[in-house]
Amino acid sequence: MFGAVIHAPGDVRYEKRADPTIIKPTDAVVRTVATCVCGSDLWRYRGIAPVKQPAPIGHEFCGVVEQVGDAVTTVRPGDFVVGGFNPSDNTCGLCRKGATANCLHGDHYDGAQAERIRVPQADGTLLATPGLPADDLVPGILALSDVMCTGWHAALSAGVGPDTSVAVVGDGAVGLSAVLAAVQLGAPVVIAMSRHDDRTALAREFGATHVVAERDEAGSAAVRQLTDGIGADCVLECVGTEGARMQAVGSVRDGGNIGLVGVPHGDLPVNELFWRNVGIKGGTANVRAYLPHLLELVLARRIDPGRVFDLELPLAQVAEAYAAMDERRAIKVLLRP
Amino acid sequence: MFGAVIHAPGDVRYEKRADPTIIKPTDAVVRTVATCVCGSDLWRYRGIAPVKQPAPIGHEFCGVVEQVGDAVTTVRPGDFVVGGFNPSDNTCGLCRKGATANCLHGDHYDGAQAERIRVPQADGTLLATPGLPADDLVPGILALSDVMCTGWHAALSAGVGPDTSVAVVGDGAVGLSAVLAAVQLGAPVVIAMSRHDDRTALAREFGATHVVAERDEAGSAAVRQLTDGIGADCVLECVGTEGARMQAVGSVRDGGNIGLVGVPHGDLPVNELFWRNVGIKGGTANVRAYLPHLLELVLARRIDPGRVFDLELPLAQVAEAYAAMDERRAIKVLLRP
Repeated sequence: MFGAVIHAPGDVRYEKRADPTIIKPTDAVVRTVATCVCGSDLWRYRGIAPVKQPAPIGHEFCGVVEQVGDAVTTVRPGDFVVGGFNPSDNTCGLCRKGATANCLHGDHYDGAQAERIRVPQADGTLLATPGLPADDLVPGILALSDVMCTGWHAALSAGVGPDTSVAVVGDGAVGLSAVLAAVQLGAPVVIAMSRHDDRTALAREFGATHVVAERDEAGSAAVRQLTDGIGADCVLECVGTEGARMQAVGSVRDGGNIGLVGVPHGDLPVNELFWRNVGIKGGTANVRAYLPHLLELVLARRIDPGRVFDLELPLAQVAEAYAAMDERRAIKVLLRP
Repeated sequence: MFGAVIHAPGDVRYEKRADPTIIKPTDAVVRTVATCVCGSDLWRYRGIAPVKQPAPIGHEFCGVVEQVGDAVTTVRPGDFVVGGFNPSDNTCGLCRKGATANCLHGDHYDGAQAERIRVPQADGTLLATPGLPADDLVPGILALSDVMCTGWHAALSAGVGPDTSVAVVGDGAVGLSAVLAAVQLGAPVVIAMSRHDDRTALAREFGATHVVAERDEAGSAAVRQLTDGIGADCVLECVGTEGARMQAVGSVRDGGNIGLVGVPHGDLPVNELFWRNVGIKGGTANVRAYLPHLLELVLARRIDPGRVFDLELPLAQVAEAYAAMDERRAIKVLLRP
């Protein structure tokens, strides 16, 4: 089969790879129907994270089960499935607490931007749709593999609910998904922080009540102005840079919460957080815990998180997908084998 | 009148001070019935925080209102009242969110270890008891001025509830109050981390289900052993040192929460918190927000947070109170004028 391999910063190739096989009895092999490029893949593409040797890449997918190991009971060949970027057994002590991102028996994929992938912990990771979904639902289902669940995680981590004002830092696919999550969770005020027309338009389509184009302290000041001068109850930080984190700290009210899903680069102002009673929580998303509810919403066409995909390419053009996202010509690129 | 003045590390004197008066129409003057020494007062007593010039000290009290300013409507002369260590107007945008610790018009006391004190923002700060409370209730009421509300704040900040396991780092008056808070909030497993017999006994009296005597990583390992190997859902950090914070990080489960009420000295392992999805929240307590409920529990004799006072002295012996706490001869000292 063929799949994407990153050889060096800026160098992603579509090349022949060994067909995946069942290694453990808890594995499944899935034929990919759609996959995509993640903002976090760009860390290596941009040379910010190291590429020590050529490595298969990608961790988002939906597709059809081709084979299952002897121990797999909840999915079978022919099922259309989606799985999270962080495989989990969904039965360990942490999974039972809903902390599937930190599953005691967590695992990873050997590159999901490929025609076929081996899925470890198939029972705990995959969720099957009832029958084959309509083709136009595929982007929405694929988005559940990471970005939508990550936006949802930011919102839950910050305690978003029907009584909270929310500001979202970051207008990438995760930030836009966080807007959608906050709206779904009933927040009456959802402020998207964005200065790009296409992203702003999508944020509004997702239900953002306000858009703030300013950045840094000017952006925080604009958020405070929209929230009775005190700042938002919940701020969802979906970037991970120090600048984004400081914008979040400046936008949250005293006693409020920051949901953090941007991989942290840089420190936190611990003392300021303490004296202002600001909570901070986040990390990688508990995808498996969120999948059943969110898949139901997608299949019922109540949400369409697939709208974050603004470019679709054949998987063979994966190199162009990386270039388009790197150059911000696309928010997120969907790839079909 | 007389009151305590700190002159230098180790040098607290009981001396003549000017009588407090109504300065703003929102003030009250309260005749102190009981006051006490806080662990945070020891920062200056021990020379860890600077003493730049002689300063009145103390921020916990209950007593009887003597005078009120023209704008005060909820308390009047003769009322027995308790007030939090952080005065608040209880009406601003942040107070309305329950974040009274960060009141937009917050203020402070000019030394509450005194015969009389001026209370700013009297309406928002003070809560009157119905009639004069029985004398044996005074320690419990006084404890609401800081430590009990601070323990409560740690528990709420960490999301303690009927389904959570809890570990408490710190066996001072705040840590012991946090044990009581966790039990009151319905936590089925409450682990007190303590190696002192008197404090351990009080923790058990407050409802701790387990006691862990080990410290540092050995202490964290013992907590994990008591919590299915994964760590406690909620850890209440009631010390503030880097060692205590690391013990909290080691004792909390992935996806769990640390409630932080020890004033932070030292940094946080931001990356570890992120990858483990551990939340952290805390600061100074929202005393006024918690007072009505907790005062009701004390007056109904359903809780007795006053048990943290294991030494009572005349206010004139305030210097000995500091020495007793500094030398750990007492958990917390109650002072009566």
